[in-house]
Amino acid sequence: MDAAEFRAHGHRLIDWIIDYHQQVASLPVQAQVAPGETAAKLPEHPGAPDGFDALLVDLDRVVVPGLTNWQHPGFFAWFPANTGYPAILAELVSAGLGVQGMSWASSPAVTEVETRMMDWMAELLGLPDGFRSASASGGGVIQGSASEATLTSILAARYRATGGSVNADSDTTKLVAYATGQAHSSIEKGLRIAGIGTDHVRVVPHDANFAMRPDALAEAIAADRAAGLVPFWVCATVGTTNSLAVDPVRAVGEIARQEGLWLHVDAAMAGIATLCPELRWLNDGLELADSYGTNPHKWMGVTFDCNLFYTADRASLLGALSILPEYLRTAAAETGAVIDYRDWQVPLGRRFRALKLWFTLRTDGVGPAQAMIRDHLAWTSELAAWVAADERFEILAPHPLNLLCLALRAGDDATTALIERANATGTAMFTRTVLGDRVALRFSIGARSTTLDGVRSAWRLLQDLAN
Amino acid sequence: MDAAEFRAHGHRLIDWIIDYHQQVASLPVQAQVAPGETAAKLPEHPGAPDGFDALLVDLDRVVVPGLTNWQHPGFFAWFPANTGYPAILAELVSAGLGVQGMSWASSPAVTEVETRMMDWMAELLGLPDGFRSASASGGGVIQGSASEATLTSILAARYRATGGSVNADSDTTKLVAYATGQAHSSIEKGLRIAGIGTDHVRVVPHDANFAMRPDALAEAIAADRAAGLVPFWVCATVGTTNSLAVDPVRAVGEIARQEGLWLHVDAAMAGIATLCPELRWLNDGLELADSYGTNPHKWMGVTFDCNLFYTADRASLLGALSILPEYLRTAAAETGAVIDYRDWQVPLGRRFRALKLWFTLRTDGVGPAQAMIRDHLAWTSELAAWVAADERFEILAPHPLNLLCLALRAGDDATTALIERANATGTAMFTRTVLGDRVALRFSIGARSTTLDGVRSAWRLLQDLAN
Repeated sequence: MDAAEFRAHGHRLIDWIIDYHQQVASLPVQAQVAPGETAAKLPEHPGAPDGFDALLVDLDRVVVPGLTNWQHPGFFAWFPANTGYPAILAELVSAGLGVQGMSWASSPAVTEVETRMMDWMAELLGLPDGFRSASASGGGVIQGSASEATLTSILAARYRATGGSVNADSDTTKLVAYATGQAHSSIEKGLRIAGIGTDHVRVVPHDANFAMRPDALAEAIAADRAAGLVPFWVCATVGTTNSLAVDPVRAVGEIARQEGLWLHVDAAMAGIATLCPELRWLNDGLELADSYGTNPHKWMGVTFDCNLFYTADRASLLGALSILPEYLRTAAAETGAVIDYRDWQVPLGRRFRALKLWFTLRTDGVGPAQAMIRDHLAWTSELAAWVAADERFEILAPHPLNLLCLALRAGDDATTALIERANATGTAMFTRTVLGDRVALRFSIGARSTTLDGVRSAWRLLQDLAN
Repeated sequence: MDAAEFRAHGHRLIDWIIDYHQQVASLPVQAQVAPGETAAKLPEHPGAPDGFDALLVDLDRVVVPGLTNWQHPGFFAWFPANTGYPAILAELVSAGLGVQGMSWASSPAVTEVETRMMDWMAELLGLPDGFRSASASGGGVIQGSASEATLTSILAARYRATGGSVNADSDTTKLVAYATGQAHSSIEKGLRIAGIGTDHVRVVPHDANFAMRPDALAEAIAADRAAGLVPFWVCATVGTTNSLAVDPVRAVGEIARQEGLWLHVDAAMAGIATLCPELRWLNDGLELADSYGTNPHKWMGVTFDCNLFYTADRASLLGALSILPEYLRTAAAETGAVIDYRDWQVPLGRRFRALKLWFTLRTDGVGPAQAMIRDHLAWTSELAAWVAADERFEILAPHPLNLLCLALRAGDDATTALIERANATGTAMFTRTVLGDRVALRFSIGARSTTLDGVRSAWRLLQDLAN
């Protein structure tokens, strides 16, 4: 493909993306394909190249029908993954430049724009000063996902708890970690990867609102200490995946400080809500956290992947993740004048992801995200009122933000069947979870394209199908 | 940003990328900025959005001067990270669609196109049948980087070696891993992350060509067994970062089979060379490997991030990385009819990266990559002849592919100074390493834009500066 072809094809694809977004509401939300159906439309073996026109035809013929459309206004499944126009353009530029941000020297602007964006976002979210790059011991980095942020925090905590000895002696057998059963699966996965098996992960009881009970945490820590174990890491979630429950970060943090545990706060979904000053209550206690993560790629429209990971203890992070072979040594890094973000993450290589934040903040700013978040909260309240007024349904959890967990009183099988029937219509999509001992339909209002009318239609669909 | 603005800005940025590539040769290869210089051009605090035109001005004013330009024809540093026009367009589409590939159900086409592309690439690279998706126990997945591929293989091996018990009991203290001192830093980092500290990582001696000595590996394994330890993982590198040395995969693999170790083959840089059938000797012994990784984002022009990770033992991989909470359960997955790639990698979320391979293979095919690889090998041979003819220089390692490690006979300080002086010119960029006890200038010929004239100019620059 030469430059002239790239120009022509690129312009067509820009237009194609607009068409996709303008037509997405007419597509099914959930892909209506059977396993293997998409693959069967692709040749089994790579043939000779057949050109861009053929490719574009297949993009519509093969790919689009196989998509579950996360940008659809009827997407109420999992959590949102909004992709905004400014961030799409930034991904284009990042790919076009093709530079590496593994170290400062590998392309200084990648690092310096990222550091600045992390500071801008800390300010816009009202995060503690201890996470800023100018702080004595903290700072921030873009991770690819909350999973990676969590793993990174576990590794830093593991390093600190063992005085660094784990880097040599492999001994993680005394370390114990804490979270509720409502914490995200990436918590257990990250712990497992770091060599902390399920025998050493305590499921801390939660209260009726699915929030961690600090008293239960304190008891569990005491029991483990009595057994000769080493409590080292606790995860508090601000907005669980199941129900957007908010753990009491301040109370958990006070225990963590007293007991010498690393406190990680996972606010992957809900943290971005603090772009709205009236929602800053979600940040209460964060100054007690050793690390924190939230995802602009969910509710802010900064195209996946973009997780903001902050720590107040970068020395432990660097201790856990720095490896310096000869071929990565640079004069700039040896003086300590620069940041080498490879030492803040699991992989070595890194894309220029900070452009996504920079493009979004320079063009749209935070206004559209704030307005969207406020709409989604208001609509969730309206929805809750409708649900409460229909006696076939019940609401299973508090709903302070944009997720309503509901169920049919007729029982779990009826709720599961309702989700499947609704998703099969292609006009809305919900996911299922289990809250306590009940199957729940998660009605997550987070897509940028969703409207109040769309929420009302989706609710009417559920009402109709419940008959 | 509305659709009309996105269209206008998108078209301009497509053109901007073409301009960047057409002008990159006139920019310095290595960014000529001081630490903090780029950040100082950005406001300390986020202000009100000032619009796309202002942003575009700053892209040229702030970002470009702060880039080390990996697409520059004079880029001979580290390894290449070529970004090709088809892959850039695929990144644009991936960002535009904004779909998630964490599970089959989350967007079936993301998974099925990826599986098909992994099979196509296995065929194009001449990899063993045991890595194909149709094989009894293997398969492939796109990882973000070789670092992540390596970590994934370590986790699968750790699971298999402990019969899965590590997932519960945290005990990694008897496991021992093996690699030469020439293996990439991500090996040690991945092992450390997985709870295998440096006390349990054996640096296997290499021969005069910097390739692993199988006899030394066998000895080290025997000594560890005698000490009651559990040898579990060995990494053979096909094309080390230092010198592109090739470990004897077949001999290492035979020992691994006999001793029950997991063999991971890290061919991050060199593996892609097997797109050329005459270079398939690099694949010798791969049928003995439990896992393998190579990076189309280096030498094939499939924009970072795109690592191909194959395993012959997907059961161990899934045992190591599967976590199934209620909110991720889907009917399609429970029947076993589909692949959920979240269980093949560390993070949960994943982008539609397979589009980059699909776009590249459908438009350019492998012809341009094959031609480039053959050119680079030929030019490396020519360069080696020039270097050999200049008695001030010497060649420090074999150079079967596209990397020449050279040094000044005047000594290490002179070689280090030569690299710094060359990079300061902005016309070429090299990186430094240590081979044996000698400082080496790595002359890596891998950028798509490099020409033979450019190689000759860079060599003349080194000759001039050596005076």
